[in-house]
Amino acid sequence: MAKKDKPHRPKARVPRGFRDRLGPEIAAEREMLARISAVYESYGFDPLETPAFEYTDALGKFLPDVDRPNQGVFSLQDDDDQWMSLRYDLTAPLARYVAENYDALPKPFRRYAVGPVWRNEKPGPGRYRQFTQCDADTVGAPAPHADAEMCMLFADVIEAAGVPPGDFVIRVSSRKIVDGLFEKLGLAGDGQGETRLDVMRSMDKFDRLGAAGVRQLLGPGRKDESGDFTKGVGLSDANIDSVIAFLSSTVARDSAATLSKIAGVLGDTPSGAEGVDQLASIDRQMSDRYRNSVAIDLSIIRGLEYYTGTVFEADLTFETLDEKGRPVRVGSVGGGGRYDGLVKRFKGVEVPAVGISVGVSRLLAALELKRGAVSEATGPVVILALEDGQMAAYQAMAAELRAAGLRAEVYLGGSNFAKQMKYADKRAAPVAIICGEDEHAKGEVTIKDLVLGKELSKKIEDNTEWRESQPAQTSVAREKLVDEVKRVLADKNA
Amino acid sequence: MAKKDKPHRPKARVPRGFRDRLGPEIAAEREMLARISAVYESYGFDPLETPAFEYTDALGKFLPDVDRPNQGVFSLQDDDDQWMSLRYDLTAPLARYVAENYDALPKPFRRYAVGPVWRNEKPGPGRYRQFTQCDADTVGAPAPHADAEMCMLFADVIEAAGVPPGDFVIRVSSRKIVDGLFEKLGLAGDGQGETRLDVMRSMDKFDRLGAAGVRQLLGPGRKDESGDFTKGVGLSDANIDSVIAFLSSTVARDSAATLSKIAGVLGDTPSGAEGVDQLASIDRQMSDRYRNSVAIDLSIIRGLEYYTGTVFEADLTFETLDEKGRPVRVGSVGGGGRYDGLVKRFKGVEVPAVGISVGVSRLLAALELKRGAVSEATGPVVILALEDGQMAAYQAMAAELRAAGLRAEVYLGGSNFAKQMKYADKRAAPVAIICGEDEHAKGEVTIKDLVLGKELSKKIEDNTEWRESQPAQTSVAREKLVDEVKRVLADKNA
Repeated sequence: MAKKDKPHRPKARVPRGFRDRLGPEIAAEREMLARISAVYESYGFDPLETPAFEYTDALGKFLPDVDRPNQGVFSLQDDDDQWMSLRYDLTAPLARYVAENYDALPKPFRRYAVGPVWRNEKPGPGRYRQFTQCDADTVGAPAPHADAEMCMLFADVIEAAGVPPGDFVIRVSSRKIVDGLFEKLGLAGDGQGETRLDVMRSMDKFDRLGAAGVRQLLGPGRKDESGDFTKGVGLSDANIDSVIAFLSSTVARDSAATLSKIAGVLGDTPSGAEGVDQLASIDRQMSDRYRNSVAIDLSIIRGLEYYTGTVFEADLTFETLDEKGRPVRVGSVGGGGRYDGLVKRFKGVEVPAVGISVGVSRLLAALELKRGAVSEATGPVVILALEDGQMAAYQAMAAELRAAGLRAEVYLGGSNFAKQMKYADKRAAPVAIICGEDEHAKGEVTIKDLVLGKELSKKIEDNTEWRESQPAQTSVAREKLVDEVKRVLADKNA
Repeated sequence: MAKKDKPHRPKARVPRGFRDRLGPEIAAEREMLARISAVYESYGFDPLETPAFEYTDALGKFLPDVDRPNQGVFSLQDDDDQWMSLRYDLTAPLARYVAENYDALPKPFRRYAVGPVWRNEKPGPGRYRQFTQCDADTVGAPAPHADAEMCMLFADVIEAAGVPPGDFVIRVSSRKIVDGLFEKLGLAGDGQGETRLDVMRSMDKFDRLGAAGVRQLLGPGRKDESGDFTKGVGLSDANIDSVIAFLSSTVARDSAATLSKIAGVLGDTPSGAEGVDQLASIDRQMSDRYRNSVAIDLSIIRGLEYYTGTVFEADLTFETLDEKGRPVRVGSVGGGGRYDGLVKRFKGVEVPAVGISVGVSRLLAALELKRGAVSEATGPVVILALEDGQMAAYQAMAAELRAAGLRAEVYLGGSNFAKQMKYADKRAAPVAIICGEDEHAKGEVTIKDLVLGKELSKKIEDNTEWRESQPAQTSVAREKLVDEVKRVLADKNA
């Protein structure tokens, strides 16, 4: 039974690119996920939990012509030789689940999912190989009604996460509109995918380079300030005008004006007309509640390659300060869209699907920056364990405090007073309960206000005087313990 | 860009030994975990989240003299050639975390953890390769005070999970007592590990075989009903008497009597005396609240090999009926103990630690069996989408119902009435909202009570008459929608 002890001791270290999180670090995320989940549920979405593993072929993660999974996923071979990979998102497992259970599911099928995903990528600052995703998807409902619902859901979710209306916008665009643009440009053909991609890459730089810069990129090419030359796409002037008209058609937070402008540019193309119709229908379904938080906005380009119809992006519009005190916009904290090819890989038929994914860690970071340094989390009430024979009495105090809804713990590391006070400090305890021989004899407990004590100790110069007067502690009858602790804590929160 | 479509379509299937869980299946577990976590937090335990992966050497999961991890864990080699494994429990990552952050942690360090663990084992009925664990551990506090706290915590957790006091017991024993027994038997020597294990295996059969059977196993050997012979341990009669005295010393739910009896058997051995002292101290710390739910009980044998001191087992004491209607005891729904060697592998020194682990899925299954068939989960209110031009109005109804705290969804799959009613049925919707052309013109909505409708349809023979009278639906003014739905639902819950 007994294994031979090796002399070698392993080094304790968290694996590269992963991290541990303790207490307050995860409490905020948990609370946000609970609030988002409650909104998903109120919309009739049911939680779905799939395992961490999927078969690699079901994820579509084999490299072409190679019989090993690609490097972006963590993969291993099961004992029956099948390759399995840890999921890299929550959409691929949904596709597998829907294909596997298609006939039994209600259609449309609304599900949400919250959980870790894994990426086998080079870790970097703030880039971890495991992180939490939080998605909602509707499968089996065609555009545009399910898309309209997604917009409202997205807005409600961002608001529930703690962003007030006015501080964010759900931007809505459509792949169809871009398809219409390419039809207008004469670039809709099968063999013109590369050119389309080049056009979209240039368009994505509109924010940074403005119309003049994008004109150069779409036409003859552009030399940047460092002198580097980017080859141009070589479009005609008329076509470049169309692209710039497309890019200039968005009127911020005014969907009707935006739609009217883009209809002027692309209304004469089949896909463009269809896209405008769908976006207009989505816009009509927004009640006044969403007027200010959902906007047709054709400036979002990212995601348009992947999705087949409507595209969403949730943007925070307030500014925060970076570490150097400069104002920065947070930008995107989530996205989504329509991807009607979801289960096609499995079933060979298109099943309409539309979904959103909330960037929980970005959202948390932004809200933390906005609120400023989070006030230090308050730890539990610590009951000092001064007499070994009184442990049952100390535990009874803790039980009473817990029953009153407070966190409370008895110190469990010996009877040294200084060590216990140091522990209470490390735990950020707001209050310490002292019941030594004296208190016990008198039927009393002493309640030490550690927050007030810390403040006073900064002000008072005569240490001896302060220690003797003990202004931050009071003794009360044992049966008053809970009331007195509550009173002290209430003063703090007032 | 476009990948060549392979003609081969992957089969959509959940990996072998894993499972998907949807809606109600996970809602009960989530709620239980939240209630257990709240108790952990009230005791001052902080949540710790470690990644799914640990380095394989940190888990101690290399086979001796083999440079590949053993088969019990899922392992893969990172791109820097280090082996990583998915955690198989929550204790090994805790050991790594404590060793890595030892100096920064408050001592004692109380943490709880909830999350999936993975076992690379042969799957079987009800045995999955991924499941949820829910642990609390106190590191850095020696016996017996932290052990006493664990008993109370364990009892509070089982109660919070939904088991009333009286329906469970936290049994407490100690490895020290068993060490005392081996001292008495003259089997405490280094070379006698195998014999000790044989003795414990025989003891573990006390419940099933009784004193006579265990006497045979400890002495000359035993032939069972099928004629198979089990070789005996060959103890002397006096030693067998001591083991039987040990096994007979437990008086159910009477810790004082049990301790008095075992002190008579093993009080003269060094380890036995220490164990009795520690268990007596634990017992003294139980307030009246725990008198009936925590009991010193020396009949628990399992776990005693692994732990170094106190051992806990949470047992449900009520009977449920199995699928054939026979009464069965659920038995253990969690366990734990003291393991002072926790971080020794890393740091070379002993750090005292004690913890518990709740068997969440066993607990859930037992409670479900006890309550009888769980009443069918109620789905969201379904608002039928009968007119395409009214989608905004339907969504506004849904928003009002959600704002009143109800789950509500608009049907999103077309305008076919029968299909929508079938969907509402599949969703277990208690109520469907109908607002077609007629209702719209009158400024009304029709509320269809689907539960009542189903009941009535069973009773009524004249289908036509029933259809015409429509007893399960009422029309009200549009602005009364929320009130009327609430009234219908309230009648159901009454």
